Amino acid sequence: MPSQRADARRNYARLLAVAEEEIAVHGADASLEQIARLAGVGSGTVRRHFPTRHALLEAVFRERVETLCDHARDLSARPDTRAALLEWLNAVTASAATIRGLAIALTRDRASDPGVAHEHCASAQLTRAGDLLVRRAAQAGTLTPGVTVTDVLALVTGIALATENEPDPAAEANRLLGLTIAGISPLRE
Amino acid sequence: MPSQRADARRNYARLLAVAEEEIAVHGADASLEQIARLAGVGSGTVRRHFPTRHALLEAVFRERVETLCDHARDLSARPDTRAALLEWLNAVTASAATIRGLAIALTRDRASDPGVAHEHCASAQLTRAGDLLVRRAAQAGTLTPGVTVTDVLALVTGIALATENEPDPAAEANRLLGLTIAGISPLRE
Repeated sequence: MPSQRADARRNYARLLAVAEEEIAVHGADASLEQIARLAGVGSGTVRRHFPTRHALLEAVFRERVETLCDHARDLSARPDTRAALLEWLNAVTASAATIRGLAIALTRDRASDPGVAHEHCASAQLTRAGDLLVRRAAQAGTLTPGVTVTDVLALVTGIALATENEPDPAAEANRLLGLTIAGISPLRE
Repeated sequence: MPSQRADARRNYARLLAVAEEEIAVHGADASLEQIARLAGVGSGTVRRHFPTRHALLEAVFRERVETLCDHARDLSARPDTRAALLEWLNAVTASAATIRGLAIALTRDRASDPGVAHEHCASAQLTRAGDLLVRRAAQAGTLTPGVTVTDVLALVTGIALATENEPDPAAEANRLLGLTIAGISPLRE
């Protein structure tokens, strides 16, 4: 019945809009009961659309993650491979530090979640998008040997989590990213 | 009345023991109601001893934080100032990555908390203890100019938060700390 399907679509859109607002205010641990209440649906409807909390976070951050992936693709033709990688890392860091819940979603991704197919999850998408930038920088010899895209995303995520209570999280996170890029105590040979 | 005071002491000791176990299992967000129930006290008693969740975390981690501070003092006479700092950072990273709730407690510290006097909180203690190691390494020219003890503790805390779902959090956290020390893409001059 088309009207039932239209209802389901409307419920989904309303749920997602409410979830975005609640997560922006309360972070990754926003109350699912409150989201259901504000969207005017039952908790069964929430579970049907989003079998796990992680599935809800993925849906809320999908657009932002796709923008970051597009940014990586745009940068991958840049001749200065180091500058291209660092520009992308700065963009990911600023997003993760300022969009409440995103850094947590990226960390939890690594644990397997039955509610989200792994290849579609935010961390897998960012890993694929950033891999080319990391490999190009490594081939040009501008990356410390052995550093992977997974490593840089873990470091960026950690910096975002550690700075979320700062007055200006993006500025502080990007400053700490700069230290991580340069090294806090590199051995000079 | 001495018996009332003895009762209060017993309640405190039991609460702290239960809180340690619950936080080890559930992390910094362990249920305060569950802790009160398991300790056999009312929630008013929990609030009297620990006015905020942060005050409870501070009490649970006090001994571990003091051990890390003693470690810093022991290392501060070491002639190799860089090795001394790195040994301490490795110890802090391993603790923060493996003791559930500790890294979160260190992050939340920075926001002011009416339940804990700031100078006694875990991050302030670690900051004071590590400051001498950082300043000695800086004076010896083995630290990147401008890096503060606050910076290195924020980086260590972030790494611990980003690796808590890894199969071997301490090993992965210390590997990422190594990359942060060396830099993921230092400029060679």
